[in-house]
Amino acid sequence: MTAAYQELERRFAHMAALDKAQEMLHWDRETTMPPGGAAARGEQLAALGLVVHEKMVDTALSDLLDQAEEFALQDPWQAANLSLMRREWRHANAIDADLVEASSRATSKAVESWLEARPNADFEAFLPSFREVVRLTRDIAQAKAEAFGVTPYDALLERFEPSITGDEIDALFGRLAAVLPGLRDRILERQASRPAPQLPNGPFPGDRQKALGERLMMLAGFDTDRGRLDVSAHPFTAGAPGDIRITTRFDEADFTSSVMAVMHETGHGLYEQGLPRDWQFQPVGAAANMTVHESQSLLIEMQASRTVEFLAHVAPLMREVLGGDGEAWQADNLHRLAIHVAPGFIRVDADEVHYPLHIMLRTRMERVLISGDLDPADVPEAWTAGMTELVGITPGNDGIGCLQDIHWASGLFGYFPTYSLGALAAAQLFAAAKEQVCEIMPGLANGDFSPLLGWLRENVHGKGALHSTQELLEQATGAPLGAEAFEAHLEQRYLG
Amino acid sequence: MTAAYQELERRFAHMAALDKAQEMLHWDRETTMPPGGAAARGEQLAALGLVVHEKMVDTALSDLLDQAEEFALQDPWQAANLSLMRREWRHANAIDADLVEASSRATSKAVESWLEARPNADFEAFLPSFREVVRLTRDIAQAKAEAFGVTPYDALLERFEPSITGDEIDALFGRLAAVLPGLRDRILERQASRPAPQLPNGPFPGDRQKALGERLMMLAGFDTDRGRLDVSAHPFTAGAPGDIRITTRFDEADFTSSVMAVMHETGHGLYEQGLPRDWQFQPVGAAANMTVHESQSLLIEMQASRTVEFLAHVAPLMREVLGGDGEAWQADNLHRLAIHVAPGFIRVDADEVHYPLHIMLRTRMERVLISGDLDPADVPEAWTAGMTELVGITPGNDGIGCLQDIHWASGLFGYFPTYSLGALAAAQLFAAAKEQVCEIMPGLANGDFSPLLGWLRENVHGKGALHSTQELLEQATGAPLGAEAFEAHLEQRYLG
Repeated sequence: MTAAYQELERRFAHMAALDKAQEMLHWDRETTMPPGGAAARGEQLAALGLVVHEKMVDTALSDLLDQAEEFALQDPWQAANLSLMRREWRHANAIDADLVEASSRATSKAVESWLEARPNADFEAFLPSFREVVRLTRDIAQAKAEAFGVTPYDALLERFEPSITGDEIDALFGRLAAVLPGLRDRILERQASRPAPQLPNGPFPGDRQKALGERLMMLAGFDTDRGRLDVSAHPFTAGAPGDIRITTRFDEADFTSSVMAVMHETGHGLYEQGLPRDWQFQPVGAAANMTVHESQSLLIEMQASRTVEFLAHVAPLMREVLGGDGEAWQADNLHRLAIHVAPGFIRVDADEVHYPLHIMLRTRMERVLISGDLDPADVPEAWTAGMTELVGITPGNDGIGCLQDIHWASGLFGYFPTYSLGALAAAQLFAAAKEQVCEIMPGLANGDFSPLLGWLRENVHGKGALHSTQELLEQATGAPLGAEAFEAHLEQRYLG
Repeated sequence: MTAAYQELERRFAHMAALDKAQEMLHWDRETTMPPGGAAARGEQLAALGLVVHEKMVDTALSDLLDQAEEFALQDPWQAANLSLMRREWRHANAIDADLVEASSRATSKAVESWLEARPNADFEAFLPSFREVVRLTRDIAQAKAEAFGVTPYDALLERFEPSITGDEIDALFGRLAAVLPGLRDRILERQASRPAPQLPNGPFPGDRQKALGERLMMLAGFDTDRGRLDVSAHPFTAGAPGDIRITTRFDEADFTSSVMAVMHETGHGLYEQGLPRDWQFQPVGAAANMTVHESQSLLIEMQASRTVEFLAHVAPLMREVLGGDGEAWQADNLHRLAIHVAPGFIRVDADEVHYPLHIMLRTRMERVLISGDLDPADVPEAWTAGMTELVGITPGNDGIGCLQDIHWASGLFGYFPTYSLGALAAAQLFAAAKEQVCEIMPGLANGDFSPLLGWLRENVHGKGALHSTQELLEQATGAPLGAEAFEAHLEQRYLG
């Protein structure tokens, strides 16, 4: 280990602390901050972003990276850490300060415009600021593409998923697109032959739902001495080592949506809590990427928690905490509710069968937005056509169409595919885990996640960012990422 | 206005944002953070502290200050702002980085040692780390004394109260020391001739006390769109413009302690919410100093909220929210409770008559600790002698004696006097306000703080840090800080 490498560890730990400070202030804004705090919080977040950027473009950092790279590090963790440092450096240094600032201003403006335009379904009002974001994102993609030697879309994707290219995603999604619509039709047909699930009668007060959420997250192995559950408009996970914060929201008429949101975020939280402590505050000690992150949330929510085994175990707990009684509270009804499939316009409300179709539409569209083959003005038309083709329903307005997501307004292009890559990875990992550890399903039936969690700690969480998605899947499941396990999972759950 | 001054405003706004980020993370640590978050939070706070320090010792900042000072600024706010920038710069640049770091490490260690030593009343265990803190604080005081051209103690005091010297404090406290013990004896005698107050019977659940606290803070004019009330082990106020957070704690057996803690912190919070918005994020737009800050909390708590007028108005509200009934809930009993006087060992539990005696003891002792005339090993003996002389009671152990406060362990010397300077200022300001605005007391009797708040907004809050304590008092009350109004207040409240 060289002195240069040691100094790099010190500098990256310092930057990580500032990043985590920023993440905590984001969390606070979404959960706690009174409305009057917005302006001051904006200043705090911008100041922190600027400080980290200054440190990342410091020429001394560049020199240290050059020096450290002259010596081969024997320890694989150190070697991976150095290469992740270079990757972060490359992203920060590929584009110049003016473009960073212009993009930051444009996305702030577009988010503001989106917040107004969405409830009014007014795409025309959103278009000018959206056009500017797309223009600047293309510039960023172009600059990064040149620096990294990849295509512009891959340069954006790389931030969220570095080991899978846009073309590889097209191949995976192409296969899904060929299979899913037919599969979905068979599932809907089979579902129609079964009794329709009943929604238990509410209202369910928020504090009871929170108590239930806390019981369930602890059941799944979430350590509440090293994390918490809070309430926000949209569920998310944030935090720092030893302090992982998940959030949910409560629908007083339907507690099941909050239960599944808690299990989803618990999956993210378990991943964060299981990251390697020896490498905390270093790039290699962080989560691998967004595909793996989403695989962990979907593994806990979709793969493990929507099983009849787990729901049979927790049905009595739900009845106890929420004071429920009767037919609708029986495990088989709760299970039918949890795996109910129905087409809809809104991605975040979609079931696991339809979800990839929503993602394919967005991925397809953002690829042509970035290549320049789709003009921002033509997004509503392309969206409507795509929804009709992929999901088979046609949104009546842009509010439930192309204006539904905040991602593009906030400059997030290349992020959407990781939701479905994560779904594929979750199915593949869960299948491998069950094959390797026979106690997993009996464990879930007893409300005991520890056999599953033990396997995840060893094969995923404890690896941090040591491996790419593909390496990690090869090692844990014997194969790179594919769609087979996901398709088999759908076949088995809905048609088996 | 020069370009240099403009650049200074930009840089200080940036540093203020980073300071406020740090303050929010402190708040979170005391109210929200799970125990596992301590290490990562320590890293975040240290990283932010380091960044601000780096920016403050940047030679470019020093050059900008020199340039800006060559031109006389016509606007008094700008002129005051520039002089406050120089003051902050002077504090940061008077001591070198090694001493800052050594002191930071020593105080962390001493606080850790204090947390263990206090419950065990084990001063010997605390002494080594305390001795180190005193040694380094003397070095800091010496370095600042040379840079500022003042005495070492005044150099420490300057951080919290820049317009009053240690000698002036000695004069004010000397007068109080001559008057208070006799006054206190007469008050105790008079009190003994009245019926003893009854404590309403609890328990009072935390959520009901919180609901009451929120009602009361809003009554006093606290804007809950621009702030919040939370729970922490020790009440405090923190925040950023538009986002002022006050905290309290709940004693289930005695709701009155939490009520008065809320009114105290509400006083701090109203001050922060009333600071001049045109100057937010600039030094001149912040609170003037700790004397004025404490005057605002004590004005709301001690001067306004412990009056028979206000308590008569809120007694029905207390009964309603807490479900109280009977003799103990009558306004006159609640008033007798609120102004009950009794000697005790613990400063934070002291009534307003005894409080200055606790402060005089600490001020006297820290002056000789900094001058070197008192060895840290001799603190317990000096403390016991001082308590016996000033308060008339002798603590049986150091846990309720010299180990009771965290201040010295954390390196806070020169802070204690501002508690009592604030008490004097509160009495002087409240007397002037009542004289100038005849609606104030009838307002309080109707639960309407707006006449009082209007006067405070105009004469204190809205001035930010434009004036020193002495200038501010001269303008608002016609006289510099004195003890007369405080003495008159005690005479009137307890013997009138």
